[in-house]
Amino acid sequence: MKSLAEIFEHTLQDVFYAENAIAKALPKVARTATDAKLKQALEDHLQETKGQIKVLKQVFASLGKEASGEKCDAIEGLIKEADGLMEEASGTALNAGLLAACQAVEHYEISRYGSLREWAKDLGHDEAHKLLSEILDQEKAANSKLTNLAVTSINKAKTSAKVAA
Amino acid sequence: MKSLAEIFEHTLQDVFYAENAIAKALPKVARTATDAKLKQALEDHLQETKGQIKVLKQVFASLGKEASGEKCDAIEGLIKEADGLMEEASGTALNAGLLAACQAVEHYEISRYGSLREWAKDLGHDEAHKLLSEILDQEKAANSKLTNLAVTSINKAKTSAKVAA
Repeated sequence: MKSLAEIFEHTLQDVFYAENAIAKALPKVARTATDAKLKQALEDHLQETKGQIKVLKQVFASLGKEASGEKCDAIEGLIKEADGLMEEASGTALNAGLLAACQAVEHYEISRYGSLREWAKDLGHDEAHKLLSEILDQEKAANSKLTNLAVTSINKAKTSAKVAA
Repeated sequence: MKSLAEIFEHTLQDVFYAENAIAKALPKVARTATDAKLKQALEDHLQETKGQIKVLKQVFASLGKEASGEKCDAIEGLIKEADGLMEEASGTALNAGLLAACQAVEHYEISRYGSLREWAKDLGHDEAHKLLSEILDQEKAANSKLTNLAVTSINKAKTSAKVAA
C-alpha cells in the first residue's frame, strides 16, 4: 500500500469485517447481560449494525467495488475482551464490564469512520463521504446512549450491588 | 468478578498493561513514520504516556494497591494492526494509516478512562476519580491534536501524494 486510495480501501475492508464480527458477537452478549435495559440496548444496536453493513455495501458500490472484508486484529481483540468478561464476571461486574466493552467497540468504530470519511472527502468520493458520515453520526449517538445508560440505570444497579457486595 | 470494585480493579490493571504496551510500541512507530510532524507528535505522546503510567501508579497507591498489569487483548489487537501497517504500507498510506491507528488507540483509552473514572466516583474513590479524569482529559487533547494533524498537515501530503500516485 502506498497511496491514500489504497489505505482507504484497506480500512474500508477492515471496518466491513469488524461490523460483521460485531453482528456475529452481539447476540451472545445480549443474551449474557442480565440488566434488562442493557439487553434491550444491545438488541437495538444489533439491528443498527445490520443496517450499517448494508450502508457499507452501498459505499463499496459507490466506488465500483464488491464489498469484502479483511481480518481486523483490533476488533478481534475487543471481542476477545468481551468474551473474557462473559466467562469470568457475573452480576454488577458483568453488566458494567460488558457496557464498558461495548463503549470501547463504539469508540473504535468512531475513530475508524472518522478517518474513513475524511479520506473519502480528500479522494473526492462524495457519495462515500456522505454515507460514512451518516454511520459515524449513528455510532456517536449509540455511544451517547450507552454513556447515559451507564450513568443512570447501570450506575444505580452498581450502587445497590456495591451495598450488597 | 462480581462487584463493581472488582471490575474497576480489573480494568485498571488492563489499562496499566495497555499504557505500558503503548510506551513499548511507540518508539518503533515514531521511527517508521516518515512525516516529520507525525514523528514529533508520536515522540511527544510517548513522553505523555510515560507520565500517565506514573499517574496510574498514584491511582493504585490511592487504593492501597501495588500497580500491576493484566494482559489486555484489545490493545494487543490495536498494536498488531499498526505492526501490519508498518510491514505493508509506505509513503502516504503509511503516514495516514499510522495516524489513524494512533487515533484508534486514543479512542480506546478515552473509552476506558471514561468508564474507570465513573466507576471511581461511584465507589467513592475521590483521589482516583480526580487522577483518572486528568488522564482522560489528556487523552482527549491528544486525539484532538492528531485530528488536527490529519486534517491540516497529513491531508495536504495526502492530496499531493494522490496527484503523484
